[in-house]
Amino acid sequence: MDHWRSFLCRVRLRDVLEDVGMKDDAVYIGYHAADVHLSLDPKKEPISRGAPMIKALQDETLIAYKMNGADIPKAHGYPLRLVAGGWPASVSGKWLNGISVRNIVHDGTKMTGTAYRVPCNPVGPGEKVKDEDMCIIESMPVKSLITYPKTGATIKEGNELNIRGHAWAGELEVSKMEYSIDFGSTWDDCPVEPPSNRLAWQHFSASIAFPKKGYYEVWARATDAQGLSQPMLLPGWNPKGYLNNACHRIAIKVV
Amino acid sequence: MDHWRSFLCRVRLRDVLEDVGMKDDAVYIGYHAADVHLSLDPKKEPISRGAPMIKALQDETLIAYKMNGADIPKAHGYPLRLVAGGWPASVSGKWLNGISVRNIVHDGTKMTGTAYRVPCNPVGPGEKVKDEDMCIIESMPVKSLITYPKTGATIKEGNELNIRGHAWAGELEVSKMEYSIDFGSTWDDCPVEPPSNRLAWQHFSASIAFPKKGYYEVWARATDAQGLSQPMLLPGWNPKGYLNNACHRIAIKVV
Repeated sequence: MDHWRSFLCRVRLRDVLEDVGMKDDAVYIGYHAADVHLSLDPKKEPISRGAPMIKALQDETLIAYKMNGADIPKAHGYPLRLVAGGWPASVSGKWLNGISVRNIVHDGTKMTGTAYRVPCNPVGPGEKVKDEDMCIIESMPVKSLITYPKTGATIKEGNELNIRGHAWAGELEVSKMEYSIDFGSTWDDCPVEPPSNRLAWQHFSASIAFPKKGYYEVWARATDAQGLSQPMLLPGWNPKGYLNNACHRIAIKVV
Repeated sequence: MDHWRSFLCRVRLRDVLEDVGMKDDAVYIGYHAADVHLSLDPKKEPISRGAPMIKALQDETLIAYKMNGADIPKAHGYPLRLVAGGWPASVSGKWLNGISVRNIVHDGTKMTGTAYRVPCNPVGPGEKVKDEDMCIIESMPVKSLITYPKTGATIKEGNELNIRGHAWAGELEVSKMEYSIDFGSTWDDCPVEPPSNRLAWQHFSASIAFPKKGYYEVWARATDAQGLSQPMLLPGWNPKGYLNNACHRIAIKVV
């Protein structure tokens, strides 16, 4: 993601919007794209999501046309892709061919009903929630992944295990990173680098000693700048299963 | 437990052992009891466990003969019960009618094999472990329970929820108690009282405010004097499923 971001050729969505001009009652943008609805009905859009003006006008909200010095790969949105970092990836529309500026919350395909929405108030597992009680997901919660080594790795007793990974926190920075090898009974700090630019993910790494031979799990936990940490398990059940930011873990055998 | 402890009429096991005398090679005690083996074979004992001398000679290791001013109820070990606080309850033998002082680790029924033992080194879920690689459980890990209200309680929006409960930590004290209403994303301190005597459980209570209507879970987490906390989920799989000290939680509806 940081690489992708660093080498992205793009214009700011804001510059385009300011160039064409916006009316005073603008509240939301909605994207339109070249992909075709499964029904082949040209009046239907497969997806058309968007964001409120405060997000659309952010420095980091982009229309990208190159990635790592080459055209954006087809699967990633060639020739143009909207990039709205820190929000659900579905806001970063692919194959972009139009932007609507709306005076209502954009009501395109996958903006309404239960799509990319969670209950406005927390609900119990399995509860039915009316559409009008569902709220649009905006900034994503803090999350992290251990990207090295793969789960199932083996290490010789007495050696330290080097792990590394990435962490991010929607519109916020990750302010703390920790790991646990005892299922969360204790946590150790894990150095985390600052982001290369706002909304970029952050690198972490650690060198871990194990007390004796056996099976371990390395759990990683990020905390955002507002002090919210990843939970160890699925937080806040919701009808579509969104926002699962539970800690990632890998299994390690010390032999 | 604290009530039970406070009103227990007992002698110290140590006083009895010192009165009868111990040889220099004493390493373990084992208890014997009046209950009969399911086979009705009088040579077989249903259970005969014990503890090393360091536990047997502790101030708090007791032979109890009354509870709350009355005889110990039959189900709890009438007329005599061994009490070895902080260790697996199976060490606190009921219907006591004999104590062996051993010069080897006691090898009575349920002392050997996999009974009340966990792998000496941590193992992966489902791993087979040889009997000789299993170690006897001694002091129990930190744990807590929310005893009020019952899970499923309902409270009016704007009101605070009063919870209370108990926490204990084997041979150690509980040094910190916390609760979370966001699945462990954040934790708040929860006052915990000192134990009424060593090995007694400790009371905690809190008054909890909820941000809005909806479904919540209140999770409680105790930390022992060595800084080990309860994990949020089953730690360290082991063949018999011992030592699950995962946090207790209750569901609350704010209406």
